Amino acid sequence: MLANRLKTLKPYKPGEQLTDRDYIKLNANENPFSPPKAVEKAVADLLNTNLKKLALYPDPDSTDLREKIADFLNQTGGVLANSENAKNQLNYKITPDMIFCGNGSDEVLSFVFYAFFDNDKKVVTPEFSYSFYPVYAGYYDIQLEKVPLKANFSLDTEKMLELGKTSTGMIFANPNAPTGIALSNTELKEMLDNFPKDKVFVVDEAYADFGSESAISLLNEYQNLLVVRTFSKSISLAGMRIGFTVGNPELIKALTTVKNSFNHFPVDVICKTVAKAALEEKEYYEKITKEIVETRDWFSMELEKKGYSVLPSKTNFVFAKKDGTKGIDIYEQVKAKGLLIRHFATPGIEDFVRITIGTKEEMIKLLQAM
Amino acid sequence: MLANRLKTLKPYKPGEQLTDRDYIKLNANENPFSPPKAVEKAVADLLNTNLKKLALYPDPDSTDLREKIADFLNQTGGVLANSENAKNQLNYKITPDMIFCGNGSDEVLSFVFYAFFDNDKKVVTPEFSYSFYPVYAGYYDIQLEKVPLKANFSLDTEKMLELGKTSTGMIFANPNAPTGIALSNTELKEMLDNFPKDKVFVVDEAYADFGSESAISLLNEYQNLLVVRTFSKSISLAGMRIGFTVGNPELIKALTTVKNSFNHFPVDVICKTVAKAALEEKEYYEKITKEIVETRDWFSMELEKKGYSVLPSKTNFVFAKKDGTKGIDIYEQVKAKGLLIRHFATPGIEDFVRITIGTKEEMIKLLQAM
Repeated sequence: MLANRLKTLKPYKPGEQLTDRDYIKLNANENPFSPPKAVEKAVADLLNTNLKKLALYPDPDSTDLREKIADFLNQTGGVLANSENAKNQLNYKITPDMIFCGNGSDEVLSFVFYAFFDNDKKVVTPEFSYSFYPVYAGYYDIQLEKVPLKANFSLDTEKMLELGKTSTGMIFANPNAPTGIALSNTELKEMLDNFPKDKVFVVDEAYADFGSESAISLLNEYQNLLVVRTFSKSISLAGMRIGFTVGNPELIKALTTVKNSFNHFPVDVICKTVAKAALEEKEYYEKITKEIVETRDWFSMELEKKGYSVLPSKTNFVFAKKDGTKGIDIYEQVKAKGLLIRHFATPGIEDFVRITIGTKEEMIKLLQAM
Repeated sequence: MLANRLKTLKPYKPGEQLTDRDYIKLNANENPFSPPKAVEKAVADLLNTNLKKLALYPDPDSTDLREKIADFLNQTGGVLANSENAKNQLNYKITPDMIFCGNGSDEVLSFVFYAFFDNDKKVVTPEFSYSFYPVYAGYYDIQLEKVPLKANFSLDTEKMLELGKTSTGMIFANPNAPTGIALSNTELKEMLDNFPKDKVFVVDEAYADFGSESAISLLNEYQNLLVVRTFSKSISLAGMRIGFTVGNPELIKALTTVKNSFNHFPVDVICKTVAKAALEEKEYYEKITKEIVETRDWFSMELEKKGYSVLPSKTNFVFAKKDGTKGIDIYEQVKAKGLLIRHFATPGIEDFVRITIGTKEEMIKLLQAM
């Protein structure tokens, strides 16, 4: 009874959600801090004054939320970790027509694949990056050109550009996952300058708030650049499913057409209320982001003292390995002690474990378990 | 920069959301009544005791919600309007593994098209039914076999079955939209008995709670039957985006694979809380459903007194026309008086207007405006 396309479909596997005991969960790059209390108040106000609103369809275009996102990005330049830093200030203004919202950046990415990548050429992507990319490609029968990472696990930008010339587009995470390594904007500009202007170049910035540079500051120069962002990491709202992309209004219009051909209203009324309230709390998010960054840098040093190699991370996770110890063994060992981290059984990265940065207390427990 | 598939994509158009003045909105088949206050309390409790939960990814399988939905259907038999009626009682038990949840029934339907309908044959559907079906088909490049309605606007089930024999599947709304006319379960059984057992037969029951029979009571007899439902109409939660489908666990597993290849977590944490709390309030929903049904039947009679022809509706809307008056003129006339109803400029139904049943007060105002 199933359609033929199901025969080859390989679904994405997220971090485990085990319930056999109470784990410290450091396997899905979630934020260890709650969203701000202002979120609770905003929802309470909505339901108290206008419960009827839940009975009506939401604004399909998320107009208010897109305005708030534009304001927020204009304030932070796209990097919370050092948003006070002058170099983050944009030299142009982001407008709401440059923003598209969806049900998590996962849905946004799915629409991006549909809207911009053709079936007759390949999409260039690193061999290791967000593991949902090959799944979207499979969903729409789009071909990927997977480019191996360099020996130091950074992107092989030269090879990517060479293959990019005849591609249908480019996509990668920056900072990359699961490595945590980031390209600078100077490196990104060099890529963009040498990439076809009529193909879309997607930078997935799920983790950019934790201290890389953001390609958002390049959007006024490159009409084919699309930056994808999420509320699931730095904004502590993985449970609410909100993501967005920023780019030139022509690309945003295409994504809106795609959304309206799939599901008109993917962002619900309460979700919008939560997201808008969260974006009013820039100082709170700067504070928790700073704390995560400090914990990450301290934790990386501590791991190295224990003989681990740790890739230089600009994210809220680290990718680490220890010579002579299998990744799966590290994973199993800490799991037995009540801590969940992530191991990928994929050849090439199977020695590593990916560890989400939790609170300092959680990381101390993890260090003891490792 | 756009993919070729965008060139032919035709997005869905929902009921207008005009903001130039304060309209009485009778154009999107929303429920005129708020969800129950219990919803507000459940969300307040969640945020007050566990705000941190918003920072973590939701349960991708919506386990708790599916249990609650199964309970609810076992209690109501799938029809709120007369759930006390013995003939609604199921002679088998719905289990959670028969249920799949998504971001509104719109997303669920999109996954249904992907999971069960192949590109090499056609999907049989009525010429007039939910106008999103051709949009999904376009999204996935699936062909539709559109079967004209009979002169009385009911489904031409004979023709549909004839074409069904060589089809890749069947889909229609029951009660149908925008006509409001319902097939009985006896008629459905006859269709199912004469439809290929290896193709999926989808009955979209967005409006079944308002007094048709529900095909849910047939699920134990037909393994290829899939019933799609929504929280947007009878459950007063269009703003929250929840829909689901009920069918045999093999079909549900396929839909789960499709979801996990598109967006792992389409139902957010608060949304689940709202939906679960709502399903605890069966008596409230029976009460408001009864009120809507009574208002519909009264309003239909009043319209007929004014010289309108009204199709026999089992939904929360009516489809009506008046000889000698254009549908668009009725629409414009009531709009000028602050009431929004729906007009489809589609040949074959362009004489009609579709009117959502609001509160009795709203319908009195509309009658005055017509």
